[in-house]
Order: sequence, then C-alpha cells, then structure tokens
Amino acid sequence: MAELILYLGGAKSGKTALAQARAETFPAPRVYLATAQALDDEMAGRIRRHQGERGPDWSTLEVPLDPDLALAALPGSGPVLFDCLTLWLSNLLGEDPDPERALARVRRLARAARQYGGPVIIVSNEVGGGIVPENALARQFRDLAGSANQRLAAEADQVVLAVAGLELKLK
Amino acid sequence: MAELILYLGGAKSGKTALAQARAETFPAPRVYLATAQALDDEMAGRIRRHQGERGPDWSTLEVPLDPDLALAALPGSGPVLFDCLTLWLSNLLGEDPDPERALARVRRLARAARQYGGPVIIVSNEVGGGIVPENALARQFRDLAGSANQRLAAEADQVVLAVAGLELKLK
Amino acid sequence: MAELILYLGGAKSGKTALAQARAETFPAPRVYLATAQALDDEMAGRIRRHQGERGPDWSTLEVPLDPDLALAALPGSGPVLFDCLTLWLSNLLGEDPDPERALARVRRLARAARQYGGPVIIVSNEVGGGIVPENALARQFRDLAGSANQRLAAEADQVVLAVAGLELKLK
Repeated sequence: MAELILYLGGAKSGKTALAQARAETFPAPRVYLATAQALDDEMAGRIRRHQGERGPDWSTLEVPLDPDLALAALPGSGPVLFDCLTLWLSNLLGEDPDPERALARVRRLARAARQYGGPVIIVSNEVGGGIVPENALARQFRDLAGSANQRLAAEADQVVLAVAGLELKLK
Repeated sequence: MAELILYLGGAKSGKTALAQARAETFPAPRVYLATAQALDDEMAGRIRRHQGERGPDWSTLEVPLDPDLALAALPGSGPVLFDCLTLWLSNLLGEDPDPERALARVRRLARAARQYGGPVIIVSNEVGGGIVPENALARQFRDLAGSANQRLAAEADQVVLAVAGLELKLK
Repeated sequence: MAELILYLGGAKSGKTALAQARAETFPAPRVYLATAQALDDEMAGRIRRHQGERGPDWSTLEVPLDPDLALAALPGSGPVLFDCLTLWLSNLLGEDPDPERALARVRRLARAARQYGGPVIIVSNEVGGGIVPENALARQFRDLAGSANQRLAAEADQVVLAVAGLELKLK
C-alpha cells in the first residue's frame, strides 16, 4: 500500500531538499519525476547539476506534462519524488488554459500515487500568502494551486510545511 | 459569554470551509454575515450558490460595510460566521481611504463579538507572506490587514491557521 | 556561549514586537542593531518614535550596511536585537547587486552571533509565500531572503514564526 507524503512551502523554503532527504529514508532505487524543462542552456545546466547532486541511486524521468501517466505506469516499489506540483500546473495551463481540466489531472495523479507500490513524495509551492495579484491569470493560477494543494493534502498520509528549511507537521 | 474564534489563511487555503464546519459544531440557527457584494451577475450567481450549499439552517445577512453594527444588533445566541475581514476592510477603504478609521471599525467589531450572546467565528486572509508589493495602496492594505489580524488574534479565544485545508492551531 | 534566536514572519505579523519582548526577558543593557535608514523626514520620525518606545534600557546602533561587523566588535553580554535581516539584504544589494556576496555577509553575521557573549535575536521577513513575482529583481531578492533565512535557521538555537502577533515554534 502506497504512502503519500506532501511537502508544501514557499519559494526557497527548503521544501525540495527536505522532501529529497525524506525520500532517502526509503531504500533505493529512487525515481525523480521532474517537471522542469531544459528550455535553454541555463536551465539545462541547472537540471544536470541537480541530477548530479542526487547521486547514482536516483533515476530521473522528465515529465513536464504527464507525471500522472508516468506514475501510473511506473513498476517497482522504490520511493518516487515528484518535483513539483505547481510547475506542472503551470506547464499544463500552457497547453490548455482550463483550470478544471488541470484539476482533473491532479485527481488522476493522486489516484496513481495511491495505486503505486511504494512511497510517493510530492513537492508543491504555497502561493496564496501574499496580496491579491493584479494580474488575472496570476489570480487564477493561485486559486488552482491552492485547490490542488487542498486536494492532495486531503489524500495524503502526511503533510509537512517547510519554513526556512525546517519542518512543520500539518498532518 | 461569547466565544471568539479566528480562522486565518492564504487564498484557497480552505479557511472558509473549515470555519463553516466549525460553526456547524454549534446548534442552529446560524447566521452568515457576508461581506461579498453582488456587483455583477457572476458574483450574484456565486453568492446564491454558496447560500444553497450552506443549507436551510443558515440565514445570510449581506453587510458589505456594517458587519460591526449588524453584529452589535444581532439577537439570539446561535453561531455567527463573518466572512471575511479582509474583504470588509477593502470595502471600507473604498468608502473612506483612511486606514486608522478602518482599524477603529475592527476594534468595534471585536467589541460586538465579545458582547454577542453566542460564538462568533471570523475568517480573514493572511496577505503578508509575499514580496513587498510595488503598488503603494497594496502595501497600505497589507499593513492594515496585518494590524487587523493581530488585533483580532489578541482578542480571540482561539486562532487557527488554515494551510491546504488543514488546521494549524495558533492559540 | 551565545544563544541565537530567529523571529520570522510576514509583513505586520508582529515579529518585531515579539522579538523585542523576547529580548526584554534578558537583563539590560540591550542593544538594538537598526538597519532602517533615516532617508527622509517621515522615516526619521518613525525611527525616533520606535527608539522612544523601546525605552532607556536600550541603546541603538544604526548599521544599515555593516551589522555583521558591528556585532563582531560589540563588547558585553547583554541581549542584541537585529532588526531586520531582509532590510539589510536590500541595503546590501543597493551597494553591490551580487547575491552571493550578500549571502557571504549573512554567514559572517551568523558567525559573529555565535561568537558574541550574549543572546542575539534576529528578525527577518518571510517573503516566499506569494505568487512568483513578475519582476526579475524581486524574484532574485526573494530567493536570496529565503536562502538567508534557511542559513540562519540552521544555525539558530530557536526559530519562531510570527503569525498575527502569535508565536509558532519551529525549532
């Protein structure tokens, strides 16, 4: 039975490093589901550097649009780290601007996490703590990200809020 | 003796749903003090839909400007849900741009909550967690909302921070 | 052996008042390391007013650029309140736009705090909780502030998150 763990946090809150450390408490092999895309040389360099930092016990799947399908198809029972939900939502809206369809994909991701044979650790940004954005698309994205976080938090066995590299247990 | 309970949270943090569930732990009848205004058809539709979702045990008072006066005049001892403080502050500033006078109204609201015969549950946005806004009015609003939240949190018997639909008890 | 205590919080979260109250649990004399600069009359008035509110047990050092050096040179063992880290980072970037050099100064501040003969209480803003800023400099500042907060939180003996004037203990 899969365990679903959600790491929430603001920008540079340390959420990815904490989530990765958590994944490394489970035995290898480990899979990193990456939503970042190597759209330019700088980004490609960052991605390669992060892969190097994770070390040889990790394999990386680049799944900017279909991490839900990739997770559903994944064999094995090693820990899976999905980084990150909010970037994926942003990628999805770039292909199809309907937030309802994006939210349906989040539900599919939660289902795939439940059905996977090992622990699934999902990283997501908290983006609702500031002033109302002037930009309508930013407001829509903020609502979508908040709804997606609520959905996954409801499904998750554990939810952790990262603040300044420290963990605050929410569930 | 009235009980004052404050639900804080960012956008789409689940604060209203949690506050409503909390209000429903107290016996009916229940009063919803609404600060949202039906300024257009879309908003009117949303307001009607939310009213329907709350069900027949709730009555709704639309008080975009005077929830403090409405609460002070309210008979009975059923739970009152005030949703939400930050939208009210925004409505007040639309009528009178002086933040000091808006803050005086917040103090009056706290007093009315204390004097009411039953539990009062107030929902408010956390808006101070982002980068400093470039817009001066946004900065002023952010300061006002933060001061109002501090004021009510100091008066409240319980304060809950909503994160991704989960409750974090602050007081 | 110095004690390092970090107070984090959003705008108007009450973090400075809580940090000051904490400093006042340690015996006088107390030193306030101020990063705000009296660049105009309004700011000069605010600074004088805050100094008055802190009372005669406090002395104030205005160190907009060099609180790390000031702290390293400070004799005595009374409590030191440094307010605030994020404004200091902003002052530093105004002199030298390289975030890596600013982060090196943060490490030097942490070292000075460790070597000081009494408790050091540092106030800092949480700025990563909103939507991604459109402005590239704002994004860079947000990343720097988050990295600096993580660095100090890792070094600190205690870390407190201020929300609506209430304390949430993170460490």
